[in-house]
Amino acid sequence: MNLILTDISALAQKLKNCRSAAILTHAHPDGDTLGAGFGLCYYLRSVGIKANVLNSEPFPEKFAFLYKDYEPQDFEPESVISVDVAAQELLGEGLFGYADKIDLCIDHHFSNRMPARDSYVDGGSCAVCLIIFELLKELGAEITPRIACCLYTGIATDTGCFMFENTSPEAHRAAAALVEAGAKASEINREMFQVKSRGRLFAEQKAIGEMKFAGGGKIALITVTNELIDGCGVDRADLDGFAGIPLTVEGVEIGITLKQQPEGVYKASIRTVSADASAIAKRFGGGGHIRAAGCTLTDDREESERIITEAAAEFL
Amino acid sequence: MNLILTDISALAQKLKNCRSAAILTHAHPDGDTLGAGFGLCYYLRSVGIKANVLNSEPFPEKFAFLYKDYEPQDFEPESVISVDVAAQELLGEGLFGYADKIDLCIDHHFSNRMPARDSYVDGGSCAVCLIIFELLKELGAEITPRIACCLYTGIATDTGCFMFENTSPEAHRAAAALVEAGAKASEINREMFQVKSRGRLFAEQKAIGEMKFAGGGKIALITVTNELIDGCGVDRADLDGFAGIPLTVEGVEIGITLKQQPEGVYKASIRTVSADASAIAKRFGGGGHIRAAGCTLTDDREESERIITEAAAEFL
Repeated sequence: MNLILTDISALAQKLKNCRSAAILTHAHPDGDTLGAGFGLCYYLRSVGIKANVLNSEPFPEKFAFLYKDYEPQDFEPESVISVDVAAQELLGEGLFGYADKIDLCIDHHFSNRMPARDSYVDGGSCAVCLIIFELLKELGAEITPRIACCLYTGIATDTGCFMFENTSPEAHRAAAALVEAGAKASEINREMFQVKSRGRLFAEQKAIGEMKFAGGGKIALITVTNELIDGCGVDRADLDGFAGIPLTVEGVEIGITLKQQPEGVYKASIRTVSADASAIAKRFGGGGHIRAAGCTLTDDREESERIITEAAAEFL
Repeated sequence: MNLILTDISALAQKLKNCRSAAILTHAHPDGDTLGAGFGLCYYLRSVGIKANVLNSEPFPEKFAFLYKDYEPQDFEPESVISVDVAAQELLGEGLFGYADKIDLCIDHHFSNRMPARDSYVDGGSCAVCLIIFELLKELGAEITPRIACCLYTGIATDTGCFMFENTSPEAHRAAAALVEAGAKASEINREMFQVKSRGRLFAEQKAIGEMKFAGGGKIALITVTNELIDGCGVDRADLDGFAGIPLTVEGVEIGITLKQQPEGVYKASIRTVSADASAIAKRFGGGGHIRAAGCTLTDDREESERIITEAAAEFL
């Protein structure tokens, strides 16, 4: 039976009945899926329940502070729990064997469509780490400094360090409690938000140097070509957040970022202050949200830039 | 008598006795001094006390949302209150006439040396806006959406949007309460932290493009020349925060920013992860804090870059 839990106490009850758990995190993991995974794992282990955190690939170096001193345990899990995984295919190839074996899905995506025996999906929560924080409070759990670091990381990263619209009063209150419980917030913030690789910095610098404007300065466009990526020696995985750059320019209302794919086509990311980004993306067979959407353009650079800028101009 | 208030209830008592107030903010005003000034002013007016906010210069356009619908009132102030002003000379020329007439100084700089009849200085508070928030709570005041926007602005800007080391649990809890009281946090965050002028963006881009490394990548240096400033058409007032750029590069432990002054000399800002920045600055007659310090270099660009890099290398 597929049960939708809507109450944190029902979720807490599920956890109390758990005897051992494999905790699944999504592919290309971010601070929220890993923070929630390790935070939950450390809690379960602290109350004598065997638990491991799994990902399709090795855990990224960037998040090493979350899994310092973590060692996988050897056991056959009774429960499979997914955190921050909105759909089966987001598990990645390495975990696909678990896709139809999930006992408990904990998520915060409105769009969640993961089949699981039980699901707790709070689309209004800014981070799964915030859900885990509330769960641990409900369980009367001790939040150790290690758990606090994990949960703080997810809340901070999913809210852009409390900058984005999704930052709720609850997120701030949880952060306050987690800092008091020992989360090393300023170190985590530096690592997550301030430090960039040289390649990333120079790729940004080059892309900004070639930024194009249209619509009287209300449209800004940057293009990240394969040549630029190779020239800066930057890892593609290290290009997250580029889509936000054009909209940081004063007066810009529609920001467009074209990122060339290894096979040559351009993936376009559209970000807007108030225009309907998904409507622009739809023109080219894409889609998304009202302020953030994407599509793929198969023309060459010049033509791709021209057609998407023209389409955007109609939405000013 | 110069009285040092150490207790928020004593500060509240002072405010209760206030019949009309001129509120002084510091020159080159930031979000904290203006947020505290206007937040306090709107509160006083809401309880029937005449109040004005004063600055040495016209209020900057960037903070227009704080003084929308604000009109100066015509009255002779009984009390003069300063907010976020650590010393007389920081009032600026336009307010210097008030320098020895301050009845109440409210500040959060440990280094405060403002002569005032009464002073409330909490060096442990991340923002004067946090002090004003606690003061209004103590007074049982209603925090209107307009006051909430003001106080949120100061707390957010002085903590780098909750990113810096000074971000306390109290800062997060105040932010939670202010958002609930109607602070438009995401709009304020976009305006304060995300939007940059084109000139600023291109000045950053050019400076980063010429970034120099030393000490095996542990020292990074950027130089902002007058030629670069003029070439990008960027206002000097719009170059705040440049000093933080070199330290955003992965592996960098000492970041140096040289900013040429109109008269030709270079002001150096030194930022460090763990080295003693003030000791480096002292070599050249400067000073500051352990992680952030500054000095002036009178040689030409090449020589200035060379000598400060060499000095920094000794502190790795």
